[in-house]
Amino acid sequence: MNETSIVEVDLDDRSYPIYIGDTLLARKELFEPHIVGNQVMIVSNSTIAPIYQDFLIESLSSYQINTFSFPDGEKFKNTDTLNSLYSNLLENKFERNCTIIALGGGVVGDIVGFAAATYLRGVNFIQVPTTLLSQVDSSVGGKTGINHPLGKNMIGAFYQPQAVIADISVLRTLPEREFSAGLAEIIKYGLINDIKFFHWLENTIEKIMDRDSFSLIQAIERSCKNKTDIVENDEKEIGKRALLNLGHTFGHAIETGMGYGEWLHGEAISAGMIMALEMSVRLGWIDQEIKQRILTLFKSANLPIEPPNSINQDHFLSLMSHDKKVLDGNIRLILLKNIGEAVISDDYPQDVFLDTLGHFFN
Amino acid sequence: MNETSIVEVDLDDRSYPIYIGDTLLARKELFEPHIVGNQVMIVSNSTIAPIYQDFLIESLSSYQINTFSFPDGEKFKNTDTLNSLYSNLLENKFERNCTIIALGGGVVGDIVGFAAATYLRGVNFIQVPTTLLSQVDSSVGGKTGINHPLGKNMIGAFYQPQAVIADISVLRTLPEREFSAGLAEIIKYGLINDIKFFHWLENTIEKIMDRDSFSLIQAIERSCKNKTDIVENDEKEIGKRALLNLGHTFGHAIETGMGYGEWLHGEAISAGMIMALEMSVRLGWIDQEIKQRILTLFKSANLPIEPPNSINQDHFLSLMSHDKKVLDGNIRLILLKNIGEAVISDDYPQDVFLDTLGHFFN
Repeated sequence: MNETSIVEVDLDDRSYPIYIGDTLLARKELFEPHIVGNQVMIVSNSTIAPIYQDFLIESLSSYQINTFSFPDGEKFKNTDTLNSLYSNLLENKFERNCTIIALGGGVVGDIVGFAAATYLRGVNFIQVPTTLLSQVDSSVGGKTGINHPLGKNMIGAFYQPQAVIADISVLRTLPEREFSAGLAEIIKYGLINDIKFFHWLENTIEKIMDRDSFSLIQAIERSCKNKTDIVENDEKEIGKRALLNLGHTFGHAIETGMGYGEWLHGEAISAGMIMALEMSVRLGWIDQEIKQRILTLFKSANLPIEPPNSINQDHFLSLMSHDKKVLDGNIRLILLKNIGEAVISDDYPQDVFLDTLGHFFN
Repeated sequence: MNETSIVEVDLDDRSYPIYIGDTLLARKELFEPHIVGNQVMIVSNSTIAPIYQDFLIESLSSYQINTFSFPDGEKFKNTDTLNSLYSNLLENKFERNCTIIALGGGVVGDIVGFAAATYLRGVNFIQVPTTLLSQVDSSVGGKTGINHPLGKNMIGAFYQPQAVIADISVLRTLPEREFSAGLAEIIKYGLINDIKFFHWLENTIEKIMDRDSFSLIQAIERSCKNKTDIVENDEKEIGKRALLNLGHTFGHAIETGMGYGEWLHGEAISAGMIMALEMSVRLGWIDQEIKQRILTLFKSANLPIEPPNSINQDHFLSLMSHDKKVLDGNIRLILLKNIGEAVISDDYPQDVFLDTLGHFFN
């Protein structure tokens, strides 16, 4: 099959297309319209580069290609890696009309996007996300950045790519846990914004778990469209875009409590979404039948539906209070009024919140 | 006198005012409309902070104020200072709705602007430029950034402040060389864009050298307006904005050849502008009378009208060839067709360029 879906992200002069399809890495005609100048830097990590980089180099053989690779893992999303990338660009005399290609998952996309935003005050970049999570999440929205010893994603910029090329063929080498972690974000779009998509996912989850090409393309396309709808109306996250953080305040506390890397981000926000769901049930917004349907879908996707039991309630509460989404002591949460209808709330009864934590923790 | 001039920089949703006047640091009503949230970080350097920081702290006493200071000098415009500032912001739990105030010259403005552009993916900042150069140059245009060991201003972003507050009273403690260096940029606006301003400067230069308040406010206002006109039409420097680099390609070679800090930036571009002028004379574009008028104005401003004689021609040429404005081996220069009319050119006869260098160097 050779169908390629295109989702257009419409942000005025920062608009760009997302191409979604099979074996896109080999299709140089998708890349060429988005490459500025003759200098191309392919940035990847030590896991992805050996498998996929050569496809890209072959497709782009008419350009001056340089490559830069760094070790796989969130802990390398730091200033050291960023400075090495800057040095590499400078040593190879990359000029303002160059193009940087991010070949990898969210870490590669975030750091390359930030390097592109800040090298010579901004150069062009193309995202080639190689995980399901990055194909449906970081490929839309322009959030770029690195971690700081004092916090995740503390340094960054909003910066849009020239194009995103989401090749589902690269997902075939993706480990099962990472595949499921990507599904957590996909289900999230159904929960916060798109009840029809949620129903479609209920009916299609088995095919998706089998990594059926057609179903995957549809799921990624619909996810990108959902995120695009939200981001187009709120590029800088001052309003509705916050809904995309469903499960994230709970989830970040899980990630921090476990040490980053122990649980995958998608796994943590999966449990986080179920915690938000449980609280929504306790607020009387979601009934038991809906709750069960949501739990069933998460289980079908092999996703965790509760936080790790190695954290206790007091610890979890202190972890949540340190999250940057806290304003003046009230913990702002994304909750569910219904499937497809998320809300931002910080005026719920405190005891419902504490009872929800008590449901999951000792 | 209490006259305050306002120059509006019109960049759609990134528009902001520049206030120019006397003893503005004490006027909290100028700051307050542009401060977002309650957290204010005042960033300054070791020269400026002891003299002026307390005025600002007193004016802003109704906010939560933190301060950050670093040693004076271009060599501290680096990742170490930037990371210290990030850490300081994080340790003091600065949130997205905070405001950073840059109290200092170009180095402080550049690094604070870049920190503001990248802390939590962008927070608000106010520029309080304390040198004549930064009042007429870096306060308009949104260029922010830091140096990299491999080059000046290699890392940065285009990012606009909420407001610029140019208080001429702080210029009274500015050393004479730095004052003249600022005048180089002021004269530049006349040369590239505004013949009437050039004539006004010829008539007013003595008062300006006496740091007469009214003349200074007028000179700064007219300079900011000229830069604003150019930047509004070309925010990202893809066209006419390059004219602002009159003297800079020659000047950067001087700065690099002398080691940064030996000559002030304004002094280097002053000699650079005279080199561009000499080449324009040799191209037959500028006659001797105009050349003499320009030289006279530069001399009245105590500015150098030739490059340092410690550099020889071959060395200078190699320094120019490393400048980032070089495209494919042709050195692109900003030259003068007339006072008030600069052009970008890279198709001049090579021998005119070399003869010009020969005029200044052995």
